[in-house]
Amino acid sequence: MDYAAFFQSRIDALKSEGRYRVFAELARRNGAFPAATRYVDGETAPVTVWCSNDYLGMGQNADVLAAFHAAADECGAGAGGTRNISGTNRHHVALERELASLHGKEAALLFTSGYVANQTALSTLGTLLPDCVILSDALNHNSMIEGIRHSRAEKHIFRHNDLAHLEELLAAQPIDRPKLIVFESVYSMDGDFGPIAEICDLAERYNALTYLDEVHGVGLYGATGAGVAERDGVMDRVDIIQGTLAKAFGVIGGYVAARADICDTIRSYGQGFIFSSALPPAVAAAACASVKVVRSTPSLRETHQERAATLKHLLLEWRLPVMRSPSHIVPVLVGDAERCKRATDMLLEDFGIYIQPINYPTVPRGTERLRLTPSPVHDDLQMRRLVEALTAVWRRLDLQAAA
Amino acid sequence: MDYAAFFQSRIDALKSEGRYRVFAELARRNGAFPAATRYVDGETAPVTVWCSNDYLGMGQNADVLAAFHAAADECGAGAGGTRNISGTNRHHVALERELASLHGKEAALLFTSGYVANQTALSTLGTLLPDCVILSDALNHNSMIEGIRHSRAEKHIFRHNDLAHLEELLAAQPIDRPKLIVFESVYSMDGDFGPIAEICDLAERYNALTYLDEVHGVGLYGATGAGVAERDGVMDRVDIIQGTLAKAFGVIGGYVAARADICDTIRSYGQGFIFSSALPPAVAAAACASVKVVRSTPSLRETHQERAATLKHLLLEWRLPVMRSPSHIVPVLVGDAERCKRATDMLLEDFGIYIQPINYPTVPRGTERLRLTPSPVHDDLQMRRLVEALTAVWRRLDLQAAA
Repeated sequence: MDYAAFFQSRIDALKSEGRYRVFAELARRNGAFPAATRYVDGETAPVTVWCSNDYLGMGQNADVLAAFHAAADECGAGAGGTRNISGTNRHHVALERELASLHGKEAALLFTSGYVANQTALSTLGTLLPDCVILSDALNHNSMIEGIRHSRAEKHIFRHNDLAHLEELLAAQPIDRPKLIVFESVYSMDGDFGPIAEICDLAERYNALTYLDEVHGVGLYGATGAGVAERDGVMDRVDIIQGTLAKAFGVIGGYVAARADICDTIRSYGQGFIFSSALPPAVAAAACASVKVVRSTPSLRETHQERAATLKHLLLEWRLPVMRSPSHIVPVLVGDAERCKRATDMLLEDFGIYIQPINYPTVPRGTERLRLTPSPVHDDLQMRRLVEALTAVWRRLDLQAAA
Repeated sequence: MDYAAFFQSRIDALKSEGRYRVFAELARRNGAFPAATRYVDGETAPVTVWCSNDYLGMGQNADVLAAFHAAADECGAGAGGTRNISGTNRHHVALERELASLHGKEAALLFTSGYVANQTALSTLGTLLPDCVILSDALNHNSMIEGIRHSRAEKHIFRHNDLAHLEELLAAQPIDRPKLIVFESVYSMDGDFGPIAEICDLAERYNALTYLDEVHGVGLYGATGAGVAERDGVMDRVDIIQGTLAKAFGVIGGYVAARADICDTIRSYGQGFIFSSALPPAVAAAACASVKVVRSTPSLRETHQERAATLKHLLLEWRLPVMRSPSHIVPVLVGDAERCKRATDMLLEDFGIYIQPINYPTVPRGTERLRLTPSPVHDDLQMRRLVEALTAVWRRLDLQAAA
């Protein structure tokens, strides 16, 4: 075995398929987001970020940063241990209370990331529930797929948002067998919603637990920003709501909110929870401040929706092929991996507009796209510049206009 | 299926075995560590923390906190995305360079935690390397076990630190078959060292890759704090060094350092890396500052070793059953889960000394213990109070004295 040759071959394979990722090195500019500075070959250039998941710009919110600084001054940088061994800080406890309250649940449990939350919660539930069968939406995020796989529970995949298919799979199982339905409220690449109420109906009929990933919904939907389940009036019917603190809340970390017995079971058995150092107190404090601000500021959500609608309208007006999306996520179709990469390179180099290309395997081949995420701090002028730049790039690369 | 009854039964099972964890809620006191404030039932009490993995007290280092504040002022709270999609900040890039340089490797790759680093790196290597066989030390940490399990590669466990057993397992494999030896430099519960040089000898003889977890070694051993492999003069012979930023470096995050082709392969294929939001820029900046301070301050390591030696000596002098440990980790044997818990409750309530009990399954039954982690900021008076309190508790609970 020639290890070096082997690793090089794996990297070369990605390069030959056009799937090798080059990370853009940025410095976000606090107070000026979506403006950032790009670092390349020892030089810097100003860019406008159009692909961040800091959906509301909360990463630069004054209350969030004040809490961040204050908790670091109070407690220092790190937590100093796992949650069990000296790492539980009062800021973690306060954040978990705030998240439980946000979702109207008895309890919440904090993880180091949304990825770890999904992976740990699902692998724990799938392992512990005796002879559990998991019903999983075909477009679920990698973190859920990996959590389910790791649990080694029996898994059935239902076609994306297909209630008839889900019911068929549920009906095929004995009523007494433990079942877990795993799905999302907003699917991140197409921006479509999951049919939460209808899935809860099926779960009740067939005695299944529901596990809802609201990663792209929390902060953004519902009267208090608790997510799409709140907007749809079904939050109390979902057993386990999973969310993130890294997107609309602008910090980092993930969580689940659920009945106290469910959270306590995951807390007590979940290995990715037990054996990880706790998040820094300052991170927990900043996230808690962010949740409080976002809960009590519906105008953030209104502006967010208005900005997304305005951008979609503008793209259509300029005959750019915006894909149909009912949510805040604005995908624009390219349909070809190589030209998707070239378009984004051109936008970056020639127009100072930063959008990461979305290629296979994140989306199916032939649906390669730009994924735009307008926020309350993207203004009209920036939108105008964006569509002008896209129009120029579309012309240069001879890309398809809107139908 | 009655789900609520089931979850309650899982919690009750832990309670009846005395293994139910109750987290101590603390506020670390920046500048005063190991002093902290404990929150319980709406009241507060001062405590001295004796079980933190902030081994050098770097969580309150002035340079670390200055970098933390400055980067938050510069970039805001969160990174805003995954490393690929708008989340790579110049502070991540600088930290990865610093870590590569620390370990004398071509590259380093940052993860959201040490747990995710082990799980992702090992599952990626074990999955990609064709027909890979993994040789794993019997006492490896849960994060490594889970990464190996998730890779579904063939696994053989060698008896802890048993070179003859490892060689026997290696010799049984075809020389051309990819092999990965996975082990630690400091085993966290007993505090003993792994035989790194001898394992590298075997790896060379049998054409295996070596993966060394230095989580409890980085910052603490070697002339520049690169770990036990540096102390032993074998850092260049280890293929992949994994470390954490949450213990000696006092912040949060994990990493691997290795040849560029290995890091790039894990970066390009590792799902727990690809699909996780990046660490906040302020966290990366604080960690980078910490690595720089720790590298250039050998006196921190000297004081750390002196403190550990002094505490061991004092415990022996007071006939407390300190377990033999060649490292900075100071385990004291109790040998019984229930009395271990009672001892720590008593230390906390009556003496303001916070030590978390270490029970099964973290350690084998009958070896339940207190795990003390003296740091450069634990002074003589605090040590004196500790041994006095331990002596009182040992007497009250009729625990075994040192042989």
